[in-house]
Amino acid sequence: MSNKLALVTGVGPGTGLSIVKRLVHGGYDVAMIARSDERLRDFQKSIPGASAWAVDVTDADQFAITLDQIHGQLGAPELVIHNAVGGVFGNFLTIDPAVLQRNFQTNVMAFLQLARHVSPAMIEAGKGAIIASGNTSALRGKSNFAGFAPTKAAQRILAESMARELGPKGIHVAYLVIDAVIDLDWTRKMRPDAPDDFFIKPEDIAEEIWHLAHQPKGAWSFNAEIRPSKETW
Amino acid sequence: MSNKLALVTGVGPGTGLSIVKRLVHGGYDVAMIARSDERLRDFQKSIPGASAWAVDVTDADQFAITLDQIHGQLGAPELVIHNAVGGVFGNFLTIDPAVLQRNFQTNVMAFLQLARHVSPAMIEAGKGAIIASGNTSALRGKSNFAGFAPTKAAQRILAESMARELGPKGIHVAYLVIDAVIDLDWTRKMRPDAPDDFFIKPEDIAEEIWHLAHQPKGAWSFNAEIRPSKETW
Amino acid sequence: MSNKLALVTGVGPGTGLSIVKRLVHGGYDVAMIARSDERLRDFQKSIPGASAWAVDVTDADQFAITLDQIHGQLGAPELVIHNAVGGVFGNFLTIDPAVLQRNFQTNVMAFLQLARHVSPAMIEAGKGAIIASGNTSALRGKSNFAGFAPTKAAQRILAESMARELGPKGIHVAYLVIDAVIDLDWTRKMRPDAPDDFFIKPEDIAEEIWHLAHQPKGAWSFNAEIRPSKETW
Amino acid sequence: MSNKLALVTGVGPGTGLSIVKRLVHGGYDVAMIARSDERLRDFQKSIPGASAWAVDVTDADQFAITLDQIHGQLGAPELVIHNAVGGVFGNFLTIDPAVLQRNFQTNVMAFLQLARHVSPAMIEAGKGAIIASGNTSALRGKSNFAGFAPTKAAQRILAESMARELGPKGIHVAYLVIDAVIDLDWTRKMRPDAPDDFFIKPEDIAEEIWHLAHQPKGAWSFNAEIRPSKETW
Repeated sequence: MSNKLALVTGVGPGTGLSIVKRLVHGGYDVAMIARSDERLRDFQKSIPGASAWAVDVTDADQFAITLDQIHGQLGAPELVIHNAVGGVFGNFLTIDPAVLQRNFQTNVMAFLQLARHVSPAMIEAGKGAIIASGNTSALRGKSNFAGFAPTKAAQRILAESMARELGPKGIHVAYLVIDAVIDLDWTRKMRPDAPDDFFIKPEDIAEEIWHLAHQPKGAWSFNAEIRPSKETW
Repeated sequence: MSNKLALVTGVGPGTGLSIVKRLVHGGYDVAMIARSDERLRDFQKSIPGASAWAVDVTDADQFAITLDQIHGQLGAPELVIHNAVGGVFGNFLTIDPAVLQRNFQTNVMAFLQLARHVSPAMIEAGKGAIIASGNTSALRGKSNFAGFAPTKAAQRILAESMARELGPKGIHVAYLVIDAVIDLDWTRKMRPDAPDDFFIKPEDIAEEIWHLAHQPKGAWSFNAEIRPSKETW
Repeated sequence: MSNKLALVTGVGPGTGLSIVKRLVHGGYDVAMIARSDERLRDFQKSIPGASAWAVDVTDADQFAITLDQIHGQLGAPELVIHNAVGGVFGNFLTIDPAVLQRNFQTNVMAFLQLARHVSPAMIEAGKGAIIASGNTSALRGKSNFAGFAPTKAAQRILAESMARELGPKGIHVAYLVIDAVIDLDWTRKMRPDAPDDFFIKPEDIAEEIWHLAHQPKGAWSFNAEIRPSKETW
Repeated sequence: MSNKLALVTGVGPGTGLSIVKRLVHGGYDVAMIARSDERLRDFQKSIPGASAWAVDVTDADQFAITLDQIHGQLGAPELVIHNAVGGVFGNFLTIDPAVLQRNFQTNVMAFLQLARHVSPAMIEAGKGAIIASGNTSALRGKSNFAGFAPTKAAQRILAESMARELGPKGIHVAYLVIDAVIDLDWTRKMRPDAPDDFFIKPEDIAEEIWHLAHQPKGAWSFNAEIRPSKETW
């Protein structure tokens, strides 16, 4: 008797890894997707049930091959988390337009490709969940987020469009806005004086995603948001 | 050693009762507030730890007395759910303006009074949660909801204002939009042909409220929403 | 041949007066409503076509009498601006709850009464416009706006509900969010060092209201917003 | 003494042409951009002051050349309308992903390129206006708009990010949501039985854009919306 399968993109040492651990803890096997093969293999060694699938999700051909391989070897995932994200700071004059384009590939086109790949099996099964992790840029365009916010807004609206199509077919699509700075090595270095409770913990994000993924069919959230108690909003 | 205390307004046989049961199941004693003394006493008999406090929350003087009595006998609640709600159908020409006024008393003024009563102890303790149950009328004014939607919008914005004040003090305020017809005797009678999965179950609402009330301090939701998979939105 | 009639509530020396002047300039007779009889009479002296109708709009009985008198003497207004507003600063713990109640009377109940009074004639004529002036509090509950924002949110949603009812009947309802500090004597005193372009000018608000009131039937705005170029948002 | 210059993309026989005519009527010379050289030349013949600049705005290299040529021959535009739009119907499973990609190029990347090209001169002049025409898809992801709505949401948020950067520099950025079916040959054919007032007229859209473009600096709209009186929303 095998575990259920989950698929997570953007598995780095922060949020992605916490999501993987939470899902494994909850009884899932997890196909981990990220660009760094080395890092994924490290995670694979230490997490039973987690498998490494290195690929650049913006490379549609390679991504398709990888998704096919996962399906061939592990079957159809019941739960898919699109956590891969491309970001950048800068206003519309200072960014390189190519960055906005690239972020669109990661945040939107890869999400679309992923959802198109996994949803037919979910539709046939009449169940499944697809969740994207987002942030406040999905709702608001601050000056310095010109190369990023448009793609997160597009991602949220794409997810909403999926949710309306898939909901009646039994598949839960949710969008989690993380309104906080995530507690990671690099964000700590950027804000060395910020107190611990300024940051949101990857484990807490993972727990909320777990919750969303397992809401009963009669009470699903599409929009969800989390922020630390100390966050100003 | 005593249980933690929760306080729930609007405890009728539907959502309110389900919330009470969920909280008792989770280890709370619950002070139940509603107008019908008889009904509350019935609930009290069958639910250990749940106590009946009959009062009309729109009667500010009586409500104050009741809140004082609860505090005196049971102590300060750590969790407060404002589930009392006044509603009506009709457009702005067909409603009786007095109904909009009355709904404002129930949905907003009573909520304000309640929050003002319970939050000082929460602030002192540095913890606590205040949750209001709402619906899509809080976000949108359809023609036939003129006597109701304005008061739910006011309630949501009041909750948001509380959340911003209380969050940094360790108290979690959340607003749950229930985007569905709740599965109750009277709603079933109004839609005799609707399938089971058209309705949202009171137990599922209660479970989501439980989740919100117990999110870790580093990852709180203010806005939350739930709807059945089959809901059109 | 007589001018068309407009009715404006909340006619003080700031926004209200500017609206009156703009409407008179555009060929309307204007029934001015505010509490201060003396002030209205001064305005009446200097503005041909503007008439003084002193009444407290939160006094439903007196307000009804005044609306009847206006109708009896001047006929049915084609354009109605609800500019009367009650506000206060303070968080939900520091405000007097009675103030929230009073602001609800001014911002919501008086608006409802006004719309119910004027819309039957508009419906019969198949045309007319009802506009409320609001601000960002209608969309957002900051901590220090607990006694005010809920009532503006309620007002906006009530207007939206009216718009959906009246639009198909040929009557235009719009809600103008003024996202700025208005240039008035008392706001200047509160911010003596703010540059001129920090403030929004009452004449500019009046001009936008004029625009909204005269959009062609095929292209109406419900939500509208204005802010100075320098405003941070 | 020369006229002020405006630049409009997406000049077809519907909204684009109406915008051009309105601007010429208001005293602008207008550089018209669209793919069809033949059509633009026809417009040019009949509209004094309007010049044809055929280019595919999704071809960044050619678009850059064209924008340079316009600038070289006509100078810097004071008013820029991004009306070019790529759309498609279909849910996320039925659309060709390449269409979402292409719509992103038209709706977002071309808009970014355009704004980057024209805004330095506007910043130096301390004035100017950039307006994008959008629709409700910018705010909402219906199932059948999966290939379109994400790109309009991205466009709106990009515009918002620009508005926050450029506003304090004296440049007005606005986003007009057109919540209606536009009255065009092909939309009439799709809805042969719809009454006239079901559609929004291109001239009315043009008039609202004129209004937005000429709001005083102290009272700018970013978000704007228009719909016919009969529209259900």
